[in-house]
Amino acid sequence: MPIPHGDDVSAVDLGSGILGVLKTDMLVGKTDVPAGMTLQQAGRKAFVMNVSDFAAKGVKPLVALIAIGIPNHMKRKEIQEVAVGLKRAAKTYDVRIIGGDTNESDDLTIVTATFGICERERIVLRRGAQAGDLLAVSGRFGKTSAGLKILQENRGVPPKVRRGLIKAVCMPEARLDVGLKLKNMGATSSIDSSDGLAWSLHELSRASSVGFEVSTLPIAKEVKIFAEVHKLNPFNLVFYGGEEYELVVTLNPKHYARARQDVKKKMCIIGKAVDGRRLTYLKDGLEKPIKAIGWEHFKR
Amino acid sequence: MPIPHGDDVSAVDLGSGILGVLKTDMLVGKTDVPAGMTLQQAGRKAFVMNVSDFAAKGVKPLVALIAIGIPNHMKRKEIQEVAVGLKRAAKTYDVRIIGGDTNESDDLTIVTATFGICERERIVLRRGAQAGDLLAVSGRFGKTSAGLKILQENRGVPPKVRRGLIKAVCMPEARLDVGLKLKNMGATSSIDSSDGLAWSLHELSRASSVGFEVSTLPIAKEVKIFAEVHKLNPFNLVFYGGEEYELVVTLNPKHYARARQDVKKKMCIIGKAVDGRRLTYLKDGLEKPIKAIGWEHFKR
Repeated sequence: MPIPHGDDVSAVDLGSGILGVLKTDMLVGKTDVPAGMTLQQAGRKAFVMNVSDFAAKGVKPLVALIAIGIPNHMKRKEIQEVAVGLKRAAKTYDVRIIGGDTNESDDLTIVTATFGICERERIVLRRGAQAGDLLAVSGRFGKTSAGLKILQENRGVPPKVRRGLIKAVCMPEARLDVGLKLKNMGATSSIDSSDGLAWSLHELSRASSVGFEVSTLPIAKEVKIFAEVHKLNPFNLVFYGGEEYELVVTLNPKHYARARQDVKKKMCIIGKAVDGRRLTYLKDGLEKPIKAIGWEHFKR
Repeated sequence: MPIPHGDDVSAVDLGSGILGVLKTDMLVGKTDVPAGMTLQQAGRKAFVMNVSDFAAKGVKPLVALIAIGIPNHMKRKEIQEVAVGLKRAAKTYDVRIIGGDTNESDDLTIVTATFGICERERIVLRRGAQAGDLLAVSGRFGKTSAGLKILQENRGVPPKVRRGLIKAVCMPEARLDVGLKLKNMGATSSIDSSDGLAWSLHELSRASSVGFEVSTLPIAKEVKIFAEVHKLNPFNLVFYGGEEYELVVTLNPKHYARARQDVKKKMCIIGKAVDGRRLTYLKDGLEKPIKAIGWEHFKR
């Protein structure tokens, strides 16, 4: 197989150094559509999840198929809302929806299958990081965990802060623009953070056989406020979240130093890859281990 | 789009006259897995449905992704059975399963997304039939409708006959071997019969702007017996069935005449394409219209 099993996408060798890249994602109403998310947003999210995996590999998705399971209580207007969400997301990322399948099912089920092509040496895998590489992320974390706490646990927060946090849950964005520049900025490994930052770091660590020292906590400003108001540990909100679609990337320092300034602006350096397999967050001279848990575990 | 919307598969132009061909199918436990079908057979069926669409287009499927929704009451062993069914089917049709997604869902949901490549001029579409073309099928019909009546309505029938009919429901086969020879035998249009023979003929009729005269009823011998025992109309069992995966094809008569004998053996000529859009079955000088209904309608 041209891509190791368990990476963000799968691929088939099409010859002449070209890979066909494929990825499927299933969104299920009960588990993936929190109360407060509209049907249009659910459709959009199903699409974004899929595009995010392509973004993390530096591959442009070209076309998509959509299989939808529709509960029989859903009205035509509601089904159309899901379709609008899917179509708008497809337009945003310049992907053509070329086919699909519809069925009756107990719960709203949206399965996207996306396809793209790329040169074999342009794809960025989970393996490839080396000790000494810079560790970078495409954005700040914790908004989705905080937003879910607002929606599911009815936590209060100033309106302006609330807006940003809910938006993170209901209108996630795939970092396709950043993803397509990964190779140009010297990315040696990459993953999206859909299972949480800590989980993503552990996946890169396992695939690349390196450890990570995180020296900067990439916390979103709304999350800082939310954590203060509710006396929550910012570290947990940032590392043990999930359903976030930022890219977590290692960069060759020399290559990155030569990269264009506009490309660099898109990334935030938060630490470095080190020998061994330890994952730690360093603050004020203290080391805190980053555990291999995702948001599913942290909720309990 | 290189393939008209609504054909059996979708495609994307990969340049140099090559198409990337894609198809997704969703199997839902409640509607697609009748009582009497094992989980292994359900997995197998999900795969066969998808391969059948490739067969009907004359395209070899290369790789597949599988997204599975698993109800939380399912045991590990049961999930493994589904996986075995999928894997064996993949092996049968020489397709590699290269990725997927698993989720929790209310009902067993299996979504296959299959990919293959082919030369643009080798693909056989639903459009392309011309008046005067031969109408052919890859096998005999009615077994699935009869088999479902046995499983769902508890209809009795001699054991040997029963076996063949149940097998048609539980262990369907995709006609990939025939499909890959379609172009060599002069196929001008093609569709699989998953929505029933009548429905498939109407789809070819619509896409190609021709009518059909069926002069031979392609009835399976078990179905003849089943119809006699239960005093059912063989015509209905043959035309208004579904979940059958035979190919329904039109053939250029001159090209077909020159085709090799071993290729011809795989097809059964049942009539011809005619001018106009009328679909009729001719028997003993009488004309009977073939309606545009599938098995879903006929059940009611």
